[in-house]
Amino acid sequence: MTRIHVPIALRWSDLDAYGHVNNARMLTLLEEARIEVFWRGRGASATPLPELHIDEGAQSLIARQEVEYLAQIPHLRDPLDVQLWIGALGGASLDVCYEVCSPEGAEPHVVFARAMSTLVLVDEQTGRPRRISDRERALWGPYLEEPVAFRRRS
Amino acid sequence: MTRIHVPIALRWSDLDAYGHVNNARMLTLLEEARIEVFWRGRGASATPLPELHIDEGAQSLIARQEVEYLAQIPHLRDPLDVQLWIGALGGASLDVCYEVCSPEGAEPHVVFARAMSTLVLVDEQTGRPRRISDRERALWGPYLEEPVAFRRRS
Amino acid sequence: MTRIHVPIALRWSDLDAYGHVNNARMLTLLEEARIEVFWRGRGASATPLPELHIDEGAQSLIARQEVEYLAQIPHLRDPLDVQLWIGALGGASLDVCYEVCSPEGAEPHVVFARAMSTLVLVDEQTGRPRRISDRERALWGPYLEEPVAFRRRS
Amino acid sequence: MTRIHVPIALRWSDLDAYGHVNNARMLTLLEEARIEVFWRGRGASATPLPELHIDEGAQSLIARQEVEYLAQIPHLRDPLDVQLWIGALGGASLDVCYEVCSPEGAEPHVVFARAMSTLVLVDEQTGRPRRISDRERALWGPYLEEPVAFRRRS
Repeated sequence: MTRIHVPIALRWSDLDAYGHVNNARMLTLLEEARIEVFWRGRGASATPLPELHIDEGAQSLIARQEVEYLAQIPHLRDPLDVQLWIGALGGASLDVCYEVCSPEGAEPHVVFARAMSTLVLVDEQTGRPRRISDRERALWGPYLEEPVAFRRRS
Repeated sequence: MTRIHVPIALRWSDLDAYGHVNNARMLTLLEEARIEVFWRGRGASATPLPELHIDEGAQSLIARQEVEYLAQIPHLRDPLDVQLWIGALGGASLDVCYEVCSPEGAEPHVVFARAMSTLVLVDEQTGRPRRISDRERALWGPYLEEPVAFRRRS
Repeated sequence: MTRIHVPIALRWSDLDAYGHVNNARMLTLLEEARIEVFWRGRGASATPLPELHIDEGAQSLIARQEVEYLAQIPHLRDPLDVQLWIGALGGASLDVCYEVCSPEGAEPHVVFARAMSTLVLVDEQTGRPRRISDRERALWGPYLEEPVAFRRRS
Repeated sequence: MTRIHVPIALRWSDLDAYGHVNNARMLTLLEEARIEVFWRGRGASATPLPELHIDEGAQSLIARQEVEYLAQIPHLRDPLDVQLWIGALGGASLDVCYEVCSPEGAEPHVVFARAMSTLVLVDEQTGRPRRISDRERALWGPYLEEPVAFRRRS
C-alpha cells in the first residue's frame, strides 16, 4: 500500500445548512490534499509527507473529477485522513485517487467519500499540455496503484 | 430537446487565484441550478422555469457527482446558461445531467463543462431512501433524455 | 435620497450550519454590490444601475470594513435589496456605506445589516495610492450623503 | 500580555483573483480562531490553547464586526498566528479582539489585520440574550485587556 495520508482540517464553514460538509466543499478539501503533496510537499503531520513536486514552469489543470459520497461528514475536531495515490499516469495527464476517511485512529473507521481527479500538466508559458517528465515519472511511480473503485457508476 | 435552461449568475468570488472559476465552485453553481428547478421552481429568467418539485417531506442527498471541465470560465457579466435534464430515473434515485454553457445568445457558444449528479430521495423523518412517487415520476418524465456523454472516462 | 439599490441574489450555500446567511458571507454580498456599481455598472435589475466606474489603470483595496448585524438572513427566493451610497470622499479613499434590506416590495421591510467599507484607490502599475480623479469625483458626488449610523460602537 | 495565540492554516482557496486572501475570507479565519477558543478549546498547536468555553445551552451571535486590513496576505505554508483576547465584557455581550499576524517565528513579523467581533450570548431555547455567567466571567477575565486600537476610523 503506497497511499499518502494527508491530514486535512475541517472548518466550521465547510458545513452547510444541513449541518454536514457541503458536497461542493469536498472538492476544496481534495484540492488542499493535492496542494500538500504536489505543490507544498511539507509535513503538516508528524510524519512528513512525500514531496511529489511538479517541475518548475508547469501548472496542472483539472480535466475531470468524480466523487462518490458514502457518508455525511459532521464537524470533526481532528483532521480528516485523506488518503491519496495515483491511479494512472498518461502522457501528459495523471489520475489522482482519494479516499476521504475519518481521522487517523478514530473508531469506527469511516470512508466518507471516494474520488478521482484527472490532472493535465500544462506549460505555464504556452498554456499547452506538456508530457510528464522523467523526473516526475520517477517521483510518482511508487505511488501508482489500482485506481479507486467506485461502487455506483452508470 | 427537453433541457431546462437555468441562468446562473457568477460572483467575482467564484474566481480563484488563477482568475478563473474554481473547480470546486462549479459544484456550487450546479447546486444553485438544481435548487431553482427542484426546490424553488421560480422563473429567474423571463421564461419561467418548469417546477420539478420534490414531494413535501423528502430531502435529496448527493450520492455521486462527475464533472468534465472543457474550458476555463472567466468572470462573466451575464449569467451562465446551465442546461439541465434528467439522464436516468431509478427506484429511489435520479441522475441530473448538466451542460454549463456561455450566456444565452453569446458568441461564440462555449460548453465550459459537462456534469452529472446522482440524487437519492430520502424521507426527512426516517432518513432512509424512499421511492420516487408517481407524482414526481409524471413531473420528471418529460425531462428524461440520454445521459450526458463524457469524453474522457477511464 | 441618493442611494443605489443593488439587487443581490442569495445562494443556498451562503447559509451556514445555523441555517442563516453566514456572517463572513455578508462581506461577499457587499463585494458583489460594489462590483455592480464600481466595476460592472450594468443593470442587473429592470432599472439600470448608475455606473460609478473607477478610472482605467486603478484598482481599489479594502482598508477597513465594519458590519452591524441586525437580523439574521434566511434563505430568500428574491434578491436582497442592498442600498449603497458614499459616506465620505477623501484624497485617495472613499467610504462606501450599505444597508442590506429585505427584497424590494417585501413586507415587512427588514434592515438585516448596516455596513461600511473604506476603499483606497491604487495605481495598478505602482501599487501606490493615487488621488481620486476629477472625473471620479464628479461621478461619485451625487451619491455622497451622511455616512451610515451604527447603533453600537464601543 | 494575555493574548491567546491561535494557529490558523490558510487554504489555497482563501485567495481571490488578485492572489491574496480575500477580504471576506478574513472573517472566516477569525471565526475559526473563535471556535478553537470558545467552542473547541483543544490544542491545535503544541502549546494547548486555554478553553474559554461558553456554558452549555447557549449560543453566541455576532452583533458587529470591524476589520482593519493592514497588509495583503499571500499564500503561506505555515499557519497564521491569530492573536485573540477579550476587549470588553458587558452584561450579555463581549468584544473579541484579534491581531492577525505572520506565522510564529517568521521574519519579518507582519500584522496583516486588526479586528473586533461583538458577540451576544443567547439562550438556545428562547433565542433571547442571557447574561454572562459567573463561571464564564471567571474564565474570561484573565484574557481581558485593552481593546484593539484601530488606526483609521471615521
